[in-house]
Parts: sequence; C-alpha cells; structure tokens
Amino acid sequence: MTAEKLQTPDSGHPPDLMDKIVSLSKRRGFIFQSSEIYGGVGSVYDYGPLGVELKNNIQQSWWREMVFRYDNIVGLDAGILMNPEVWVASGHVGAFTDPLVECRNCHRRYRADELEQVAAGNLEAQQCPSCGKTGEFTEPRQFNLMFKTFMGAVEQEAATVYLRPETAQGIFVNFKNVQDSARRKVPFGIAQVGKAFRNEITPGNFIFRTREFEQMEMQFFVKPGSEDEWFETWKERRMDWARSLGIRSERLRFHQHGPDELAHYCKDAYDIEYLFPFGWQEFEGIHNRTDYDLTRHQEHSGKKLEYFDQAANDRFVPYVVETSAGLSRTLLVVLADAYDEEEIEGDTRVVLRLNPALAPVQAAVFPLTKKDGMPEVAEKLAADLRGSFNVFFDGAGSIGRRYRRQDEAGTPFCMTIDNQTLEDQTVTVRDRDTLEQTRVSLTGVSAYLHEAIAAARNQF
Amino acid sequence: MTAEKLQTPDSGHPPDLMDKIVSLSKRRGFIFQSSEIYGGVGSVYDYGPLGVELKNNIQQSWWREMVFRYDNIVGLDAGILMNPEVWVASGHVGAFTDPLVECRNCHRRYRADELEQVAAGNLEAQQCPSCGKTGEFTEPRQFNLMFKTFMGAVEQEAATVYLRPETAQGIFVNFKNVQDSARRKVPFGIAQVGKAFRNEITPGNFIFRTREFEQMEMQFFVKPGSEDEWFETWKERRMDWARSLGIRSERLRFHQHGPDELAHYCKDAYDIEYLFPFGWQEFEGIHNRTDYDLTRHQEHSGKKLEYFDQAANDRFVPYVVETSAGLSRTLLVVLADAYDEEEIEGDTRVVLRLNPALAPVQAAVFPLTKKDGMPEVAEKLAADLRGSFNVFFDGAGSIGRRYRRQDEAGTPFCMTIDNQTLEDQTVTVRDRDTLEQTRVSLTGVSAYLHEAIAAARNQF
Repeated sequence: MTAEKLQTPDSGHPPDLMDKIVSLSKRRGFIFQSSEIYGGVGSVYDYGPLGVELKNNIQQSWWREMVFRYDNIVGLDAGILMNPEVWVASGHVGAFTDPLVECRNCHRRYRADELEQVAAGNLEAQQCPSCGKTGEFTEPRQFNLMFKTFMGAVEQEAATVYLRPETAQGIFVNFKNVQDSARRKVPFGIAQVGKAFRNEITPGNFIFRTREFEQMEMQFFVKPGSEDEWFETWKERRMDWARSLGIRSERLRFHQHGPDELAHYCKDAYDIEYLFPFGWQEFEGIHNRTDYDLTRHQEHSGKKLEYFDQAANDRFVPYVVETSAGLSRTLLVVLADAYDEEEIEGDTRVVLRLNPALAPVQAAVFPLTKKDGMPEVAEKLAADLRGSFNVFFDGAGSIGRRYRRQDEAGTPFCMTIDNQTLEDQTVTVRDRDTLEQTRVSLTGVSAYLHEAIAAARNQF
Repeated sequence: MTAEKLQTPDSGHPPDLMDKIVSLSKRRGFIFQSSEIYGGVGSVYDYGPLGVELKNNIQQSWWREMVFRYDNIVGLDAGILMNPEVWVASGHVGAFTDPLVECRNCHRRYRADELEQVAAGNLEAQQCPSCGKTGEFTEPRQFNLMFKTFMGAVEQEAATVYLRPETAQGIFVNFKNVQDSARRKVPFGIAQVGKAFRNEITPGNFIFRTREFEQMEMQFFVKPGSEDEWFETWKERRMDWARSLGIRSERLRFHQHGPDELAHYCKDAYDIEYLFPFGWQEFEGIHNRTDYDLTRHQEHSGKKLEYFDQAANDRFVPYVVETSAGLSRTLLVVLADAYDEEEIEGDTRVVLRLNPALAPVQAAVFPLTKKDGMPEVAEKLAADLRGSFNVFFDGAGSIGRRYRRQDEAGTPFCMTIDNQTLEDQTVTVRDRDTLEQTRVSLTGVSAYLHEAIAAARNQF
C-alpha cells in the first residue's frame, strides 16, 4: 500500500459511509461480526439473511459470466486443505510473508511497509501510532501469512498442512485432470469460487481485508506467445463485468503494477480498483503469470504438465492469464456503490440502489391493512411468487415504514394489496428508485417481475 | 457404526459400484483426489468440471426448498473460524472425540468402536486387520477430531482457534442477530450451507467420510412444547425432498437413534439412510436438540438468547429442531443411485440417470459431420442455448461415442445437426434414458428444454 493510496480523494460517497455500511449491515442483516456474543474473533465476518443472498447473487452472476458463457471455460471446486508440497512449489512456504515490526513499548505490531519512516529505513524516527513513543520499533522480520494445522490421528506424527492462502493453486495442480477429462483444447480456462485464509498482521476496513475471505478466480491456459493478446482481452472483459453489475464507471479504474509491485512470477499485472471511501483500492487483478506455476509444479511433482497441440504437432507448458477477484471485496464494492441517502418530505431516506438482479429480496408483498381479507390476498400473491423469486412478506406496521425497510434492503419492487385490489384485482408495484407506483393485475405481477429482472440481468 | 451396518445387504446396485463410481468420477471429471500429482492428501477431494455443477445444483435445489419456499426460513453464511469459546460452550473441546487404539506391532490406528473385540472390551482377543497380530492393541484413548490452528501475528501468543467441525454453531451464536434483523417470529428457521472439517481417524468410502466436507443444515426455532410436532413435520419434509431428487424409495429409510446412539443433547433423532453398496448409511439427520445449544451459549457468553412472544406475553429459550444433511454425501447418494449399466447392441452402456434438473450438463450439441456448414449451425445453436442452460459442444468423433460420453456425464438431452437440419431447420433431440430421438425445430429447442427441465425441477 503506497502513501498515495492512503490519501482519500473525493469519492462522492456520503460522509462517514463506512460507518453507515457497518451499521446498516448489522441492522438489516447483511453482515455480522463472527461470534459476536463472545466478543468476535479477529477479522472474520458472517453473512446474514440479506448478505448471503447478495453474495450468492454476485457469485452466480460471475459463474454465469465465466463458466456458462464460454464453451472453453469449465468450473472446479478444490479443497481448502492440500498436500503441503503444493505450497513449497508455489513459493508460499518460502516467501508468502509480510515484514513485521513491533513497538517495544506497547507491543503493538504493524506491517513495516505501512509505517512511513520504517518503510524508508528510519526505524529510530518512527513514532508508534498506538502509544506515541518514538524509536522503539524492532527490526522488521518476515512473518508467514499461512494458517497451519495438523492432519492425522496423532499430533506429533501428523503432517503440517496449510489452509490455502489462495484458490489458484487448486487449479494448477488439477490442470492435467481437468484437461484430460473435459477434453478442452488450449486456449481454455478453469474457474473456481472458494474460501482462502491469510493470517494478516493488520486486517481492516470491515470486510475489505479479512483473515477468512472468498475468491473468484479463473486461470486461462494459452499457447506461449499469445498471452499478451489474451491479457488485453481479459482485462477488458473483467472491467466490462464490473460495469455491468451497475458499478459507476467514474469510480472504476485500472492500475498497472509498476516494477516494484510486480510479483516475481508476473510479466504484467493490472488491478481493477474502486474508489472506496478510504481511497482507490484493488478488488480484482488480471495477471500474466507466464508458465511459472505449471513449471514449478512439474519440477516439484515430477509429473508432466505439458499440453500437446495435435494440429500443430507441438508440445508446450501453457502460459497462464489469471483473473482473480475477491468475492467479499466485490460485495463491499456493490454495497458502497449502491448506498444512497436522500431527503424526502423532511425525512432522510436510506436506499440501496442495487441492480435488481443482485438484490437479496426481489419482491416484497404488503397488505395495506389487516382488514377486509387483504392479508389473505397478499399471502397468496407472496406464495405464488415464491417459486420464482426471493419474496418478503411484511404484514404489519405503517406502510411508509415498511417501504423504508425494503429501501434499506435494496428491494427493487414492493407490491401493496389495497382497497382497489379487492375491487379490480390489481396491486400497486412501487419502484425503489423512482418511487413511482404502477398498478398491475394480480395475475400479471409475475410476468412484470420476470421482465424487469431479466432486463437487469441482461446488463451482465 | 454397528456390526449390522457393516454387512452389505443386496442393494440392487451393479457389482463393484464404488470402484466404478471412483473410476467414472476421475475419467469424466466429477471428483479428483486432492493434490493428486503430489500423491494426494489424507481424504480430501476436489470437484471437477462436472462434479462442481452437480454439487451446485444439489445445493441450489436445497436452498430453494429450505429458504425460498418458506417465508419463515432465512439463510446465513457464517465463518469457518470462530471464537474458540464457541467450542467450549458447545461441548466440542471437551467431548468431540473418538476412541483411538493403536496396534503396537504395526502402529496402525483404528477407531476402537470399529473393531468388534475391542468394542466388546476384549482387547487381548483382537486381531489387527492390518498386520494380523493378536492382542497387541493399546487401551482406547479419547482423540479430539477438531483441527486447530493459530490466529494472530506471533505464534506463541496467538489464539488457538479451530476449523469448525459442524456448521450448526454458526447459526446458534447468530440467533439474536438474525432474529433482530430479519424480524421473524418463532417458529422460524435459519439455513446454511458450508464447509466443516473433522480429523477423522478412519476416513473412507470415497467421499462418504472425508476430513473436509460440506453440510446443508437448518435449525428451526420453536416454542417449547411444539417441538415434537415440528420434528414430525421436518422428518417428512426432508424424506420427501430426497425422493423428489429422484432417489429410489426402496433405497431410502428412516433409522431412529436408540438410547445408546442418541447424543446427550438430543431428545429424539432420526437418520435418513441410503442403501449404499457398502450398506445402509446416514446422509441426513433430523434432531430434536431441545434448548441445549442456546442455553449453553447463553451461559457461556452471558448474553440473553431468549425470545419474547409479544402476543402471548411470554419469554422463553426456543427449542431447536435441526435438519442436517451432508452435501458431499448427498452427491454420493445421487451418483450411486443414478449409475446404471445396460447392454445395447453387444455393448455395455454406462449411463447416469440423473434428474435432468440436477445434471451438470443439460444439453449437448453435435454437428453430425464437419461438412456442409453443420458445425456453424451447431455452434450457433449452442451459443443461443448457453444463456439459459449449461451446454456442451462436441464437434468431432463418431456420433455413437459422443452420445456415450454424454451418457456417462448424465446429460439428459443431445441435439444433433444433420443433413435434414440443412433442409428443414429441425434437429434430433435424443433422450438419454429412452434413447428416443425426436425432431424439434431449431427455434423450438430452447422452449423444449425449458419445459422438460422445469418439469423435472417441479418434482422438487
């Protein structure tokens, strides 16, 4: 993280947005601190009823885009626990470290590169941000970020295994099995969504940097020489996807890794960054990993990881263009970009302007009052819609408060059963963004929603 | 596991079914051994291109059934890492153990309850199944099955945390947060799908008992006194769901836990068992857990986990009826039940008779030959269908072999572009099970598939 990134440019977000998102997340059930009743656990979060639906919708949209859309990409779901040799070959056992310093006075620990004077080599000039003492920092030492555990029935003899710090290696070690069974010709890709774990020294910014998180990665295997062209293609495709979710273009940008940022196995790398309230930060990376990974695994495992191109009678270790997105981070991008406040009739309305195809609840159904059989009509409508949509039924309270709650949940459409419904079998469909109310026949509501949500989905 | 279960009744499965499933899983890309190029890692499996789609389809069918269908059930996705006090309160730190014995001669380790003489207390009479020596077994000792790791920046001071051995506790500790934010009245349920980890002494039977696995659990919170009725309801609903997937009824049964099997926190428990090739075994359990879990967490956390019933002006700790299914096990049930072999024209046809709504690939598209523009027509059809279905395009090889490969993948419909297509714009749709071929217009294929798959999905 460079000093430039720590500055917060004017993002156009409402003031104190991160605090508001944390508060809304708990209040409406998007995200809770893990084990909160026990005081939590270092930087792990749980996804509540709305959060899990939003996360599932983002994940499924990614899967449709990356797996279903292309004939030459297939899915995979590898285990979190792998043979420990994988992490020797990948370089993680040796070098997946952050420089750690400790204040001798208050024993608070920091990543050395996050303290300006320490990073510049002036340890004696560094004041501790926690206790304020100057010149008390220890020399930086390398701290490995992998969580380790023990597999087998007796601890002293058990094998040390790691919780994977990235999903990518599960794809590389399965390259041959996937290629043999799925019979795809190079170029082809393998896509995966799954959890990864990093024992971060300084996690933070809510779900932005956490010790347990989810990745959406795709490794695209190409003929050496064609990697630059594919790199450009995937750069553009991934940015297009981010925009298709409804993320504002002016808060999206590419950031090319400079020589000091580039991983040793990378020939080129771009981040897709979002303008968070805390500055421009990466939520996806596109990497030209060359043949580094397959070659390393070939050497360490002694198994050939080559591809034979029949048409050209050519044998080679493919190059890899990788697209690596954080699912948890993408969810934070979606929340931050959707959060809006506006003044209406002297009140502040909080509304999540989520793409309707991503919204956790797609349709809410309300009876206006508890009288005249309105609840029964509303319950029947909710039941009918439930086969196709995620539906929320809310039968009590002022209609205004019921709308506001759904605004905070990002629900695009609210249907109210009122007196007119009993006369002409129509309901009001209230649009979350425009606040316009349209009357639709009870029998036409399903088609109305299908059409509106399909149109939103077709954006991605 | 009782001796009765170790006997293999006549299941009606093809001979050597488990071997055949393991072989097919690797050949067609359902399931691979994790890190296979490094010799694997103890009982962890990776899901290949077909396996991940089948698993996703089972998971999504469960989610639709358990979350979308009922207004009073909501979803959750809690972290794998939790505050370690959770596992003290739940009893896992103290008692989540298996009795372990070791042969002093060959050092092979066993679960004591799996060796008949050891289980009966006659250690001196037990012959080692591995080396054949008699009377060499150590006294049983309790072995905790939880994987542990260390969180925090310096190992000696870091907290010991566990990989969750079950997903249920993530639901119990979030009870208040979910109830407050989702505003559901008792009775209501919280559903979750996620990974869990157990350092099993003797994993086995392929993906049946593994050290890393996935659960699909729902905890239903009810008013004390109503738990027996809800227990019956959920027993029936869960068995209905298993049948709706297409699992043969004669291979499904309930097994009620006897007094010696019942967990100390359970008032009543039923397994749903499947007749595997290795005998009747559980793949889902329905448990009346009483108020044990919420009461324990209330005591250990000091936080009230009561529910206030406004209508009755009554305050209580809810009782819990739990439905707990193994996702990996359910996938094995689905594979085992779908696997079939039949003799056709002197050949053995291997076919997975999967419910079309669960099949990893729903439609395959073939050009009969590479001539006369057939590949172009086929590629266009495949592209058109790809927006709605998971589609496989196979452009080469004998048509018979292409069909056979899709039979092994469980693909319900194969569309072939042939000479007649070029004349009248129709294709053959070949049914996996009946082998019948129907001619359908190119423009009508999508509707044909939608209808057939919706009909299959409506079974569940």
